[in-house]
Amino acid sequence: MWQQFTIQLKPRNRGFHLITEELTSTAQSALSGISVGMFHAFIQHTSASISINENADPTVRQDLEAHLNKMIPELAPYYQHTYEGPDDMPAHIKTALIGNAINIPIAEGQLLLGTWQGIYLGEHRNHGGSRRIIVTLHGE
Amino acid sequence: MWQQFTIQLKPRNRGFHLITEELTSTAQSALSGISVGMFHAFIQHTSASISINENADPTVRQDLEAHLNKMIPELAPYYQHTYEGPDDMPAHIKTALIGNAINIPIAEGQLLLGTWQGIYLGEHRNHGGSRRIIVTLHGE
Amino acid sequence: MWQQFTIQLKPRNRGFHLITEELTSTAQSALSGISVGMFHAFIQHTSASISINENADPTVRQDLEAHLNKMIPELAPYYQHTYEGPDDMPAHIKTALIGNAINIPIAEGQLLLGTWQGIYLGEHRNHGGSRRIIVTLHGE
Repeated sequence: MWQQFTIQLKPRNRGFHLITEELTSTAQSALSGISVGMFHAFIQHTSASISINENADPTVRQDLEAHLNKMIPELAPYYQHTYEGPDDMPAHIKTALIGNAINIPIAEGQLLLGTWQGIYLGEHRNHGGSRRIIVTLHGE
Repeated sequence: MWQQFTIQLKPRNRGFHLITEELTSTAQSALSGISVGMFHAFIQHTSASISINENADPTVRQDLEAHLNKMIPELAPYYQHTYEGPDDMPAHIKTALIGNAINIPIAEGQLLLGTWQGIYLGEHRNHGGSRRIIVTLHGE
Repeated sequence: MWQQFTIQLKPRNRGFHLITEELTSTAQSALSGISVGMFHAFIQHTSASISINENADPTVRQDLEAHLNKMIPELAPYYQHTYEGPDDMPAHIKTALIGNAINIPIAEGQLLLGTWQGIYLGEHRNHGGSRRIIVTLHGE
């Protein structure tokens, strides 16, 4: 059994955002029919990332953004790809490191996320707009 | 054909650890029945990572830990999420960058790892305790 | 339906390289028979990475290489794993961070890559030689 959905996220500010509910609500009825399988989410962009991290304290998401901005600064003197703005090249590097897809196991109609795990959108542009994610479910 | 296992790893010190044997031994008989498929391992935590890297020289794992500790230091002045200890926020950042899951192709009952590839647990807390991994196999 | 291919890439210089065509051409006829499924590519090495990023401007790939070389330098005083050359340990760290596999959803015989997404080989050694990738397709 395969099912696939396109989800258009609402636009968000630069930084990390919990999107667990927004991603899974569309797939809920498909999920509920799977006793064992996989949930895959793939963001069709190169300046926004998708990952799994702590779902409780919002300062985790703020600190992650703060540290990435230091580790991957804007306006590094060796950047050549500058014509899309100072936030663009760092956004590509962040996406390369964090990744653009996640794969979560399914059991008994539920995502097997740990207690403290949630799905993060990493919006790495200042004005990234609405991002598109392909969700593919597969199982039996 | 789908099979799923929960593996409770033994507790380990902070750093990178080869867990190929510990992960695959439980799944061995399921693996042996798959002629082509995928092996997925997912760690249900946000301060420990799972990845694939060099399986021979232990100094690779030590150097990886040393460099990550420099690249993602404790006690950065901009961290707000500090109440779980100085090792906690760096652990979340390391996990975001390295990832919490791997997907390895299967052929003829074997994982298609390269000669020098092994599976790493990245234990990013000082006292992380036992970590839980969901292994999902799927194939024909 | 499962299909699996081994692809031996032509040797490339250190840096990031677009390999979308080289990876997908072998799998084209298998792809065309899948209405919904997944395309998985796994590099069997620990000093070369595979990822998805911007497919147009070559300076994005050059800047990514330049920044990674700064973030993960050669000859760090704490590296112990030095006997394979100064480019070796940084190559393992880059691979740990970027990853060694990608999973792309398939619909109607096509990879669901975004308009600006391409598949990158990250060749992190000075003389890495030919790299081997396992492509596994699965769908209905």
